[in-house]
Amino acid sequence: MKSIFHLFLVVILFSFLSPLVKAQTKNDLKEIEKRFDLNLEAKDLKAWMKQLSSHPHHVGSQWDKKNAEFIASKFKSWGFDTNIEEFYVLFPTPKFRLLEMVKPEKFSAQLKETILKEDQTSNQTDEQLPTYNAYSADGDVTTDLVYVNYGVPKDYEVLEEKGIDVKGKIVIARYGGSWRGIKPKVAAEHGAIGCLIYSDPKEDGYYAGDVYPAGAYRNDEGVQRGSVADMPIYSGDPLTPFVAATKDAKRLSVKEAITIMKIPVLPISYADALPLLRALDGPVVPDEWKGALPITYHFGPGKTVVHLKLEFNWDIKPIYDVIAKIQGTEFPDEWIIRGNHHDAWVNGASDPISGQVVMMEEAKSFGGLLKTGWKPKRTIIYCAWDGEEPGLLGSSEWVEAHADELSQKAVAYINSDGNERGFLFAAGPRDLQNFINNIARGVNDPEKNISVYERSRARLILNGTQEQKKAALDKKDFQIGALGSGSDYTPFIHHLGIASLNLGFGGEGGGGEYHSIYDSFDHYLRFVDSTFKYGIALAEVAGHSVINLSEAEILPLRFTDFYEEVNQYLKEVIKLADDMREKTSTQNKLISENIYDKYSDPSKTLIPPKIEEPVPFINFAPLQNAIEKLQQNAANYAQVLNSFKEKGILLTQDKEKLLNENLIKTQRALISKTGLPRRPWYAHQIYAPGFYTGYGVKTLPGVREAIEQRNWKEAEQQIEITAKALESYSDVISEAVKILKSE
Amino acid sequence: MKSIFHLFLVVILFSFLSPLVKAQTKNDLKEIEKRFDLNLEAKDLKAWMKQLSSHPHHVGSQWDKKNAEFIASKFKSWGFDTNIEEFYVLFPTPKFRLLEMVKPEKFSAQLKETILKEDQTSNQTDEQLPTYNAYSADGDVTTDLVYVNYGVPKDYEVLEEKGIDVKGKIVIARYGGSWRGIKPKVAAEHGAIGCLIYSDPKEDGYYAGDVYPAGAYRNDEGVQRGSVADMPIYSGDPLTPFVAATKDAKRLSVKEAITIMKIPVLPISYADALPLLRALDGPVVPDEWKGALPITYHFGPGKTVVHLKLEFNWDIKPIYDVIAKIQGTEFPDEWIIRGNHHDAWVNGASDPISGQVVMMEEAKSFGGLLKTGWKPKRTIIYCAWDGEEPGLLGSSEWVEAHADELSQKAVAYINSDGNERGFLFAAGPRDLQNFINNIARGVNDPEKNISVYERSRARLILNGTQEQKKAALDKKDFQIGALGSGSDYTPFIHHLGIASLNLGFGGEGGGGEYHSIYDSFDHYLRFVDSTFKYGIALAEVAGHSVINLSEAEILPLRFTDFYEEVNQYLKEVIKLADDMREKTSTQNKLISENIYDKYSDPSKTLIPPKIEEPVPFINFAPLQNAIEKLQQNAANYAQVLNSFKEKGILLTQDKEKLLNENLIKTQRALISKTGLPRRPWYAHQIYAPGFYTGYGVKTLPGVREAIEQRNWKEAEQQIEITAKALESYSDVISEAVKILKSE
Repeated sequence: MKSIFHLFLVVILFSFLSPLVKAQTKNDLKEIEKRFDLNLEAKDLKAWMKQLSSHPHHVGSQWDKKNAEFIASKFKSWGFDTNIEEFYVLFPTPKFRLLEMVKPEKFSAQLKETILKEDQTSNQTDEQLPTYNAYSADGDVTTDLVYVNYGVPKDYEVLEEKGIDVKGKIVIARYGGSWRGIKPKVAAEHGAIGCLIYSDPKEDGYYAGDVYPAGAYRNDEGVQRGSVADMPIYSGDPLTPFVAATKDAKRLSVKEAITIMKIPVLPISYADALPLLRALDGPVVPDEWKGALPITYHFGPGKTVVHLKLEFNWDIKPIYDVIAKIQGTEFPDEWIIRGNHHDAWVNGASDPISGQVVMMEEAKSFGGLLKTGWKPKRTIIYCAWDGEEPGLLGSSEWVEAHADELSQKAVAYINSDGNERGFLFAAGPRDLQNFINNIARGVNDPEKNISVYERSRARLILNGTQEQKKAALDKKDFQIGALGSGSDYTPFIHHLGIASLNLGFGGEGGGGEYHSIYDSFDHYLRFVDSTFKYGIALAEVAGHSVINLSEAEILPLRFTDFYEEVNQYLKEVIKLADDMREKTSTQNKLISENIYDKYSDPSKTLIPPKIEEPVPFINFAPLQNAIEKLQQNAANYAQVLNSFKEKGILLTQDKEKLLNENLIKTQRALISKTGLPRRPWYAHQIYAPGFYTGYGVKTLPGVREAIEQRNWKEAEQQIEITAKALESYSDVISEAVKILKSE
Repeated sequence: MKSIFHLFLVVILFSFLSPLVKAQTKNDLKEIEKRFDLNLEAKDLKAWMKQLSSHPHHVGSQWDKKNAEFIASKFKSWGFDTNIEEFYVLFPTPKFRLLEMVKPEKFSAQLKETILKEDQTSNQTDEQLPTYNAYSADGDVTTDLVYVNYGVPKDYEVLEEKGIDVKGKIVIARYGGSWRGIKPKVAAEHGAIGCLIYSDPKEDGYYAGDVYPAGAYRNDEGVQRGSVADMPIYSGDPLTPFVAATKDAKRLSVKEAITIMKIPVLPISYADALPLLRALDGPVVPDEWKGALPITYHFGPGKTVVHLKLEFNWDIKPIYDVIAKIQGTEFPDEWIIRGNHHDAWVNGASDPISGQVVMMEEAKSFGGLLKTGWKPKRTIIYCAWDGEEPGLLGSSEWVEAHADELSQKAVAYINSDGNERGFLFAAGPRDLQNFINNIARGVNDPEKNISVYERSRARLILNGTQEQKKAALDKKDFQIGALGSGSDYTPFIHHLGIASLNLGFGGEGGGGEYHSIYDSFDHYLRFVDSTFKYGIALAEVAGHSVINLSEAEILPLRFTDFYEEVNQYLKEVIKLADDMREKTSTQNKLISENIYDKYSDPSKTLIPPKIEEPVPFINFAPLQNAIEKLQQNAANYAQVLNSFKEKGILLTQDKEKLLNENLIKTQRALISKTGLPRRPWYAHQIYAPGFYTGYGVKTLPGVREAIEQRNWKEAEQQIEITAKALESYSDVISEAVKILKSE
């Protein structure tokens, strides 16, 4: 108790002092920010978006290359040292697609999106990729259909309870509830031989709002394309894990590549799904499984037989990463990296061009600063990634290509992707939370006369959890999210342990254009951010972040926040084990007392769950001790910095250099050499995309997933490994304190 | 703390002893129950249901009278002293109904249900009442339409926030969220001039299950008829509150009758609602407002103009209550009353005939016992009510006609209504909770080899709240619900303070036939309880209840349970005030800090709530003291009974009589002379139907509703009145203890 109270005081004191920069420098920085902002112009965003989204520009298309070249030429024109790095990746595209119902009635799925006169680019049919899931298997299957809700593991528990087996069947899952790639993976694990994924209007259609072109939301023929590579194993080219997909890289065969799906998978619209779902019989599904189609949702199987046939061109295609540098003057070997992808599934005005043009505008503004003679202290690298959509290909291959250098030099990576009107959202390790909050306090919401911090605060007060509401009322920093996957920060943070931030505005520009031909300039202009004001706001947030990182005297990390973060996760995993223990014990008791049989309706099937092994008590002590140590070291560091500040002590440049080189290592310390069980590419011990959630983050992933999977031995091993990572992080902080105190 | 622990011990001990009857008598009772059960035959239920539901038999129809006469003849044949009591009630029926959309397109609502070949009685069009709401006003209005969700007060808060006013408009509300009569009442309070109520498929249609005739659920043309009289003011004939609607009763004019709706109201199907809702514009509604129609739900108003014209025949019609008695031998002036209504909206196989035939079967069985020479100790009265559907007319008028005698003599009233397959549900004052649990322990579930108590226990363990689950695991009594309104127990408990139980099985026979032409014999047989086994189970539960009440040596009331009940309510109302105080204070702070303005999307309307008067601290002490006293008296009574039991002390018959006459007064003590504010007919201080929920119960209604309405002065007045009622109840218990202890 005592030490926590002590820490609490320190945190309060410290919150007024971070990021710690000398007073003089702070004014300088504010001046640079002001000059940076003056260069930003919304009209650029509009013009570049129009240009970059004028044609479909997926991997392998002519416009993918053209766009990369356009972006590179711009970066060059602004004075960046620019080059295009090419990689050669497996990128399957459809050769043949067929989906039909053969029983109880004939129905052939349309599998295409309608050209709309209200959408100028929707008619570029020849250039558009058909609706499909990249890295689906080839296949030709005809069999019964079963509805599996979101198709996540707990949905299969419900099926089991009803006595329904998907073995040898085709499943139909709705989008949502997990990243799409989880659905065919789990289906295949349960023996299914095909998988359809459809957009239910509940999550993605008229339930949310009026449909396109009347409104922004997905119409009945809109289809969500997307990758189904098993990215929770590794991201990047499926054929070249751990190494760059250079021209002559050693490649796996398609068969050997474990991230390629084992069964055929096809995404469909709700117009195509409706006849199939309507024809299903079997019991009625529970309420949580029901979508917004005007039918009674049934599990199947029964009389509904479906034929799915898919063939792909398994081609290697070039991708084009645009890499643009401004050399740092004082610390050229400390890199601040900023990235956003440029490839799209189709025209991609929102995803990714709305973010891409913001990044370009930042670069243009830095170009303007360079012309006035300004130079950054650290090296700034702007990256326009290719191949994000199929599997974070451009960023992953680049990270793998430059792994050693990045591990040495990267201070931080700042990512964005699509951007819309609304509130600032940020995610990253929580030692950057205070940093990004301070940035947010210095950027104005373009439609309100308040800072974006204040705007987010109002949102949390009115719409947050009780905890968020309380923190916001107390004017504390808003809490940033933990990073799972879903954009190009993945290889940086998860593979190499580079401190990463993901930034964007959202919440007031909702729509259903995602990965369809309707993600167009016309759609963006009408519904997402017509004035591009929120694009400019993002340029300010990301640009100020780059400036403050590149110019910081002492890198703005607040370790006490990180302690609070991991301590919270520790509590969660302990509670997870406790709850499972309690639940298993109760459940076993109910089973042995026949409560399920007593309850069940004899006219319906209810298969009671099986007796499970009791949950043992797990030794969390190594983690508890490591986190206790982290708390002390984080508090120490805060205290020393604070005392320097109070006494007005300035650091020598050498000491600063030494200190910052050390601070960079904190996030790197959280990487384990062995990586996570069964997926060594994911090496970060605090965050990972969930093995069964995909985009959704799992924190303390080794420990948490071992418990979830009831693997008690592995849980204890992972506790040891994670504790070691946290100890290393603590040691870096302790070293930083030594440097500060040294003569 | 001490006294609670003490009480706890007593409760545990006592739970094995109640209902307290001498050992010999208990065996006798078991023997009577067994003989009673042997007389029960499912084939009777089927035959009588077929007969009674063969034609529409609403108030005023020829089959309403014929059915009453058939039921009366049966009761007579079983040896009951039977008569039909007639009353003369206002019963409006449609003369003209028109609903059309005039803008933005023409659409005329169908307003009728389709004849189905799968449903033999669905073609009795000439005899069916059209789809309508009884006690709607006449009206002819043409104006804009606004969607108001369930149309309850908090929905209007949402509308206000969006800047939408229903003044001078027609509202369309979906069924659900409250009793239907609340919707037009609240709409009129907000200035609306017409009200449509439709069945959304989310609550009542394909969302729940396959629709009729394929499945049990409401199809797109099914309409829920029903009363919209303002029954939370008083039930029974709108023209004769407080007095019986005899031929020559003094009547109010229709204009004077405050329970008649002030605006025209019409129930419609979802087929008729769809074009209207689809045409609405204005902002998209929040998720909680969305139904299961395949549209984007909008608030309106806008371009949608609707014309609603309704005219009614405002006729006085006779109703026929069948009243059948078996005179008690020992205590003829102590009445056990059993009732179920016989009138329906149309054919009413489920509602009410499934309950009516159960009650008849019980009577037949008692007839069999009478033939063997058995006679009840107390008088048993079986009642088949007419006019329940329009407004609990038959029961309310009978109760008003016999109020004095009932107040003197009624021991308890046992009600049922529609019955289906599934689990036993019971509601009533909690001093009867242990009694009905013990009855449930002695009746077998007809499809499982366990008691209906055990079956309910399994349900609560698997589907109950955490609290219910825990209680069920500990094999405690399942908690019975508190009585709101919605069936014929209302005048008994709420107007006169007669201990009432509402019993029925349900949960495994769900459907959407309610108040439509499809509530038919065909529907019941296919979907609700094909074998009538659960009808027999209800006959056992209700029959055993009658037997155990009529034969009890000491009436089986457990006051310690009642103490726990009201103590729980006390905690709730204190928390209600505390939460409101906190919420008001926070909200006022947010308003004064402009948080709503900071949050709002400038492209949308968001009107911040208004500053509200702070919630004062309220003096709950009178209620707290009364409940403390109740706790002591209840524990005393339990202790004395227990010591008698332990010592084997038997009561003299005189003492028993004195004691029971006293015990009957407990529930009566909870009636206040003045009744509830603005609705004096509702006199019970612990339970009432909610002024703004209708069927939904409000416990400690005077206090709770005053707080909810922010009427602090009235809250304190009601605390005094309710405390007095509880003190009177306590005094009766204390008197009972004196009688027990007297020489």
